[in-house]
Amino acid sequence: GYRQLERSRRGLEGAPEWPALRALLPAVHGLDVLDLGCGFGWFCRWAHAQGARTVVGLDLSENMLTRARELTAPGTVSYRRADLEEVALPAGGFDLVYSSLALHYLEHLPELLDRVYAALRPGGQLVFSVEHPIFTAPRRPGWLQPDGHRTWPVDQYLLEGPRVTDWLAPGVVKQHRTVSTYLNLLITRGFTVRHLEEWGPTDAQVAAQPELAEERERPMFLLVAATR
Amino acid sequence: GYRQLERSRRGLEGAPEWPALRALLPAVHGLDVLDLGCGFGWFCRWAHAQGARTVVGLDLSENMLTRARELTAPGTVSYRRADLEEVALPAGGFDLVYSSLALHYLEHLPELLDRVYAALRPGGQLVFSVEHPIFTAPRRPGWLQPDGHRTWPVDQYLLEGPRVTDWLAPGVVKQHRTVSTYLNLLITRGFTVRHLEEWGPTDAQVAAQPELAEERERPMFLLVAATR
Repeated sequence: GYRQLERSRRGLEGAPEWPALRALLPAVHGLDVLDLGCGFGWFCRWAHAQGARTVVGLDLSENMLTRARELTAPGTVSYRRADLEEVALPAGGFDLVYSSLALHYLEHLPELLDRVYAALRPGGQLVFSVEHPIFTAPRRPGWLQPDGHRTWPVDQYLLEGPRVTDWLAPGVVKQHRTVSTYLNLLITRGFTVRHLEEWGPTDAQVAAQPELAEERERPMFLLVAATR
Repeated sequence: GYRQLERSRRGLEGAPEWPALRALLPAVHGLDVLDLGCGFGWFCRWAHAQGARTVVGLDLSENMLTRARELTAPGTVSYRRADLEEVALPAGGFDLVYSSLALHYLEHLPELLDRVYAALRPGGQLVFSVEHPIFTAPRRPGWLQPDGHRTWPVDQYLLEGPRVTDWLAPGVVKQHRTVSTYLNLLITRGFTVRHLEEWGPTDAQVAAQPELAEERERPMFLLVAATR
């Protein structure tokens, strides 16, 4: 299950894309920070340690929030249970909205982005990761080896909508959206896209964890930085 | 060969992505327009017919330019032979720079984009299409049908660089770049990305040409609109 994953057990250091995502963040010192889908609170604690003025972490799972609170020094992070499909956010309340691998589960992402835009102060930043559309698109998401080389079967790419997988738990529903949909949703709301990254491991990461090499064959994560 | 392709023979109307690309264009009336890789001049003539103030078409192929000149009313378009890898462009000379399916052949795209940025007036537009990175990435670009469904084998996605194919002529070299590289090249030069489109056919197009349905499985074209 989720708790056993490297990224849950070891936190940010267990997430190979974290250095790339961190590089997209503004200096967090003094900022009011919101984490959408905070899980066990690894990013929230990091943001507090970086000197964030306030940190709010939202998650749907009360179990995760309970564990997050156990791991967090009292008074440093505000954890709240919220469904991102419909959560209300205070207008102009934040300088940085962050989300790691949560937004591709949302059916109502356009509406959330409306609220995120309103929740950011002018010049505020949205930095997030999602599963890459190349990763979420296929009917059968798994490597093929038709001629000895590993290759990833892309189909249904332009057919946006739910994808049901049995990862972590049977019947998990992701919402497949194209790269262009993610970007145009931001642009049409008034965001300026600052950077896009289709994550792949560095040479040093592959040397340390050779199994990461396959991530160069097709990107698993899409990282986006945008400014209000 | 190239002349036999629908898009060469029938021009813009033979290119199924043209309506989507056209929708990204500003009103062309009164603009100074540059077409990078103009081929037989179909877009140049269209831009002139739309009321462009001046239209310049550049292409590497003297044969194509000869045919373009034959097809074009004298005095309406300036065709010039130029290698986009190194062409000089007049600073601040254009309101619209357009390119259809040419830029993915360029090794020195970053340098060309420097020159395009300088060649655009403030507020000027760059609108282009390239072969989509999902289309250019694979070792073996061709459909697989492992279980009766057509699927596109994506590999080497994050390994940017030359791809040799035997399409049209043996040994054609394309330069594979990721979606994020295309966008970040624009952003770091000062462009604002206005729209991204991973082209797929409309229902009406699939009804008229059922073979286009496969383009929904994986995008063949990436369309980009950016503003200086």
